[in-house]
Amino acid sequence: MHNGSLVVGVDAGGTSTRVAVYSLRGTRVGYGRAGGGNPSAHGLTAAATEVGTALKAALDGLDPASVAASVAGVAGNNPAFGQELKRVWAAHGVPARPRMINDVPVAYAAGTPEPSGTVLLAGTGAAAARVTGHELDSIADGLGWLLADEGSGFWIGRAAAKAVVRALDRAGDSDRPVEGTLVESVVGHFLGDERGPTPRREAERIVRLAQADRMMLAPLSALVSQAAAEGDPMATEIVGQAAGHLAESVARVYQGGPIVLAGSVLTSEGPVRQAVTEILRERWAATVTTARDGAGAAAWLAALPLLSTRESTDLHQAFTEP
Amino acid sequence: MHNGSLVVGVDAGGTSTRVAVYSLRGTRVGYGRAGGGNPSAHGLTAAATEVGTALKAALDGLDPASVAASVAGVAGNNPAFGQELKRVWAAHGVPARPRMINDVPVAYAAGTPEPSGTVLLAGTGAAAARVTGHELDSIADGLGWLLADEGSGFWIGRAAAKAVVRALDRAGDSDRPVEGTLVESVVGHFLGDERGPTPRREAERIVRLAQADRMMLAPLSALVSQAAAEGDPMATEIVGQAAGHLAESVARVYQGGPIVLAGSVLTSEGPVRQAVTEILRERWAATVTTARDGAGAAAWLAALPLLSTRESTDLHQAFTEP
Repeated sequence: MHNGSLVVGVDAGGTSTRVAVYSLRGTRVGYGRAGGGNPSAHGLTAAATEVGTALKAALDGLDPASVAASVAGVAGNNPAFGQELKRVWAAHGVPARPRMINDVPVAYAAGTPEPSGTVLLAGTGAAAARVTGHELDSIADGLGWLLADEGSGFWIGRAAAKAVVRALDRAGDSDRPVEGTLVESVVGHFLGDERGPTPRREAERIVRLAQADRMMLAPLSALVSQAAAEGDPMATEIVGQAAGHLAESVARVYQGGPIVLAGSVLTSEGPVRQAVTEILRERWAATVTTARDGAGAAAWLAALPLLSTRESTDLHQAFTEP
Repeated sequence: MHNGSLVVGVDAGGTSTRVAVYSLRGTRVGYGRAGGGNPSAHGLTAAATEVGTALKAALDGLDPASVAASVAGVAGNNPAFGQELKRVWAAHGVPARPRMINDVPVAYAAGTPEPSGTVLLAGTGAAAARVTGHELDSIADGLGWLLADEGSGFWIGRAAAKAVVRALDRAGDSDRPVEGTLVESVVGHFLGDERGPTPRREAERIVRLAQADRMMLAPLSALVSQAAAEGDPMATEIVGQAAGHLAESVARVYQGGPIVLAGSVLTSEGPVRQAVTEILRERWAATVTTARDGAGAAAWLAALPLLSTRESTDLHQAFTEP
């Protein structure tokens, strides 16, 4: 059964790792999850252990010897991690070695079977990339929270915190709390129900908390989406700026083909996704699609050499079904 | 000699502490320096030790019993540090207890004898404050590097790094290095003479260094000043934005009186100081002065209750001479 007829796909991300096992007919026969498998974030050994945990779960009840090909999508470019993955595959009895590739073409393949096009990623970070023949060709941004990642979840959250802190500072020692959907939700995120004693003191308290843990900022992007959906002007402005930055990153790499939206900021319905989609469709009349399951997309990339072009196109939907 | 006729001023900053001893006639009779004396940055005990070292040097050859009054300007509001300072004064044989005040009115007094007006500070951080009767009345910004301090040295340096990283990213894999005064000086600051191999790779290397040590950013503000003075458009734009932000902070607190410029970004000649001064003079026809010696200003504040209004005004220049 399944002899030489299975493919394995790995999506090793910063917060979770997913491994999918598919038959060459596009039937999902196994799926496993584990913790973060990004070697840059977690270290080689810890990341490889998580991938191994997810692989074991995905292969449960299957014959590891029937795996014909594996592709692992991993952030960054760390050849040593490729060696680690080979060891993990051998330890789990999978004879075929995994091919490690960048996670960007995997995100792209999660949204389209076309070999060449553009992917726009916006999660905690943000980058646009041109993919040519299923391989990373050129990248724009993705240059980190401190100086770049413009339009990312962190960028949006920080913009919200900045705007709210500025509004509170401007109100100074007023004895009336500053109102507004975004102001109230951001103040609530940091201070809970304990507002005051003055807007200026609220600003000081928020700054202290944010500087102590800047990870509190990225989750604010969800509050921006909610507030923008309710018509809050401050949130609407931030959404517009983020969408403009993201489209500008696409402009640096775009050379035709479909544009795939990936990352939590762009795959969930909301004002940022909507604004970006409108800009991309207007500016380039491009086909805009949404990334689906990354582990499935990696499995699909593993299956590509074993399928005809027609088969691979027809099966793309089945492989990337969430 | 000098019996009951000396005053002591302390300027306890993040990087250095200065203590000045003056006669009531405005003659400087002692001056001492030591390391950072800011209790928020260095801890209570370490900061108090530095102030003690500077105090000892300043009192060298003088009778500590002749000190009639002392004022210590310290950032933040930490009553426990006031207790520490009392212990230090006693340990050095000074009977009169020091009065600890916020460093903002000291910076203001370093630029004018007028009891009420505005001070605009821009060093690594940035804030504007209204001072009323020599006391801090209301403050705008000063809310930290992550979300605020708009127009500060850190803000200017980060803006420069962002603009340069964006320009390098835009040039991508070009085999020609990106040119421009600011680009070249910022790349040199981070990478020395080792440019390349491509602009995109330079951007990635700069991001890695800046994220590992964000203290590399504030010193870039000097490069922005130089480049703007040479007419570099990127630097000129950053200077204009910084000046606009600083003037906007003044606008939040200004209620007439002189405006004192303080902090390294504004006390040294250069495009930021020039642009801010022009905006302030145009918008409010205000008298704009520059903060001089902070320890001398603190000593002058200590002497105030012992002098007539006329004497204090006449002696202000002598007390704050650098």
